[in-house]
Amino acid sequence: MGRRATIRDVAARAGVHPATASRALNPALPGRVAAETARRVVEAARELGYRPDPAARSLRTRRSGLVGVVVPDIANPVIPPIVRGVENVLWSAGIACLLADTDNDPDREAALIAELRARRCDGLIVATATRADETVAHLADEEVPTVLVTRAVEGADLPLVAGDDASGVRAAVAHLRELGHERIAHLTGPLELSTTVRRLEAFRDAVGVDDPVVLHGEGFTIPTGRTLAAQLLERHPETTAILAGNDMIAVGCYDVLAAAGLRVPDDMSVVGHNDMPLVDSLSPPLTTVAIPQEEIGEQAARILLDRLAGDSPDGSAVRLMPTELVVRGSTAPPRRA
Amino acid sequence: MGRRATIRDVAARAGVHPATASRALNPALPGRVAAETARRVVEAARELGYRPDPAARSLRTRRSGLVGVVVPDIANPVIPPIVRGVENVLWSAGIACLLADTDNDPDREAALIAELRARRCDGLIVATATRADETVAHLADEEVPTVLVTRAVEGADLPLVAGDDASGVRAAVAHLRELGHERIAHLTGPLELSTTVRRLEAFRDAVGVDDPVVLHGEGFTIPTGRTLAAQLLERHPETTAILAGNDMIAVGCYDVLAAAGLRVPDDMSVVGHNDMPLVDSLSPPLTTVAIPQEEIGEQAARILLDRLAGDSPDGSAVRLMPTELVVRGSTAPPRRA
Repeated sequence: MGRRATIRDVAARAGVHPATASRALNPALPGRVAAETARRVVEAARELGYRPDPAARSLRTRRSGLVGVVVPDIANPVIPPIVRGVENVLWSAGIACLLADTDNDPDREAALIAELRARRCDGLIVATATRADETVAHLADEEVPTVLVTRAVEGADLPLVAGDDASGVRAAVAHLRELGHERIAHLTGPLELSTTVRRLEAFRDAVGVDDPVVLHGEGFTIPTGRTLAAQLLERHPETTAILAGNDMIAVGCYDVLAAAGLRVPDDMSVVGHNDMPLVDSLSPPLTTVAIPQEEIGEQAARILLDRLAGDSPDGSAVRLMPTELVVRGSTAPPRRA
Repeated sequence: MGRRATIRDVAARAGVHPATASRALNPALPGRVAAETARRVVEAARELGYRPDPAARSLRTRRSGLVGVVVPDIANPVIPPIVRGVENVLWSAGIACLLADTDNDPDREAALIAELRARRCDGLIVATATRADETVAHLADEEVPTVLVTRAVEGADLPLVAGDDASGVRAAVAHLRELGHERIAHLTGPLELSTTVRRLEAFRDAVGVDDPVVLHGEGFTIPTGRTLAAQLLERHPETTAILAGNDMIAVGCYDVLAAAGLRVPDDMSVVGHNDMPLVDSLSPPLTTVAIPQEEIGEQAARILLDRLAGDSPDGSAVRLMPTELVVRGSTAPPRRA
């Protein structure tokens, strides 16, 4: 792969002192070099294929150049695009991602976060938080630079980047009401997750009736969707539209409705949340709320980089990224309308 | 989180010398302690929630305790279960995973692998190899402990763990022939990937005609599937069954067949490969070759641990994990049979 370009090579090409080149390329020190100079240095680094030597920089900065990325289950289709966004932004800043998969197990989460801290991670991106998550809340107390993605901890002073689920749910409910639906049920995910509560509160606000039908599930999974849909058909057969807590729950509804001889959308409209891969290939294609997963990951990584650079000490900042209702074939006017 | 248990605590509980406890828990030194003693130490470590201090161990062993995991695209549904298997086995051995996503870009692959080596990774798990991949072949030359998953480099002396695709393709073709299909076409992924060649060779061996219809695609994607299916209908309308290079290509076929007014499986049978999430919820549910992705990741991690422990210097070992044909609703006898 040839001799590795050094910071001295970059400085020589840009016509600046090596210390200036180093400052210009240090993601922890943005804005400390004149913009035009920084531009020349970055251009020279790009032309030479320069990448900082992580070990040398670690000694100089007393930082590991590592960030821990804690996920509940990398095989859950919502998670990989978020990780991709995080990884892309951090690598570009010369920081590597340690991936830790908790398998949705609080004990494993605690053990993995302890291990990431023991490995001197400069910061953490955490996608596993429950609303009452003591392990994660503890990170705020100990001032470990941490950014939460998608899932929040109540009362913890930690920045959060998530989809604007409330806006998406309002758009979904408005769409169903415009079609003429008056009996809309919400089948939720687990109540210990903030995503469930955000979507539920938006549903209650938007649906326009005092005591709407809401059934709570134990997971954001297809089996949960099957269980809830079966309960719904038995207890609330007058329902004409289902707002599912996520796409997996919606797929579980498809299964139970088909088994009961009910057609989507003729006999029941169904709306999902997330727009995961292949829901546009279901029969019928699923109407759902798309969340910008990769952008959520990128934004979380940028906020963490800002924190590592000493900026934006506002720990409790919440950044909600725009969601979009994608109308497909699973929603239509109710049969009796 | 309380005081962290040390190796001395574990040794005291197990009734052995700390050096013995340390050897018993070192994944790089399996078998150097009597089995019964090792069992007691592992049990004591579990009871105390002991995890080795990575920094102390790194100083002692001159190892970073890091393994680089290089993936072509973490958002491709085939990849996350493999990463999950790798991560699970390595964390259990006290080793952390640095995730690097190349976005299927050879230049980015070269830059990321250089960066992982600069960070003193003890070894690499590589899922991005092309058949003529010089960057990856170079790892064998430089004796960087490396295990390839799914994708092989031709002529490189590196161990590979993959699904037994040939066996799966043979089962798929036998299934179609038993149904009565004689005009079976294969729509492949990119020829620069070994997975494409493995599946293609198995197809040619199994299909029982001299010059079967084969169309090559540029990617393992839904758009590729659409392009190939449209070509197939135009050039080879006599085809009654499609063996798709993977599930995404099969989904692209569904789209084009539906648009042409052809029904699956009545007018055309379709078989996929991989059994990715939600293909069992398509209409009709997709018949496909399931590959044990998580087990492939676990096995690759175990082989890397063995290499790091100095065992199995046989670099070119190939471990093929059993695949399974999952027959669903997308295959049936041909109309004219």
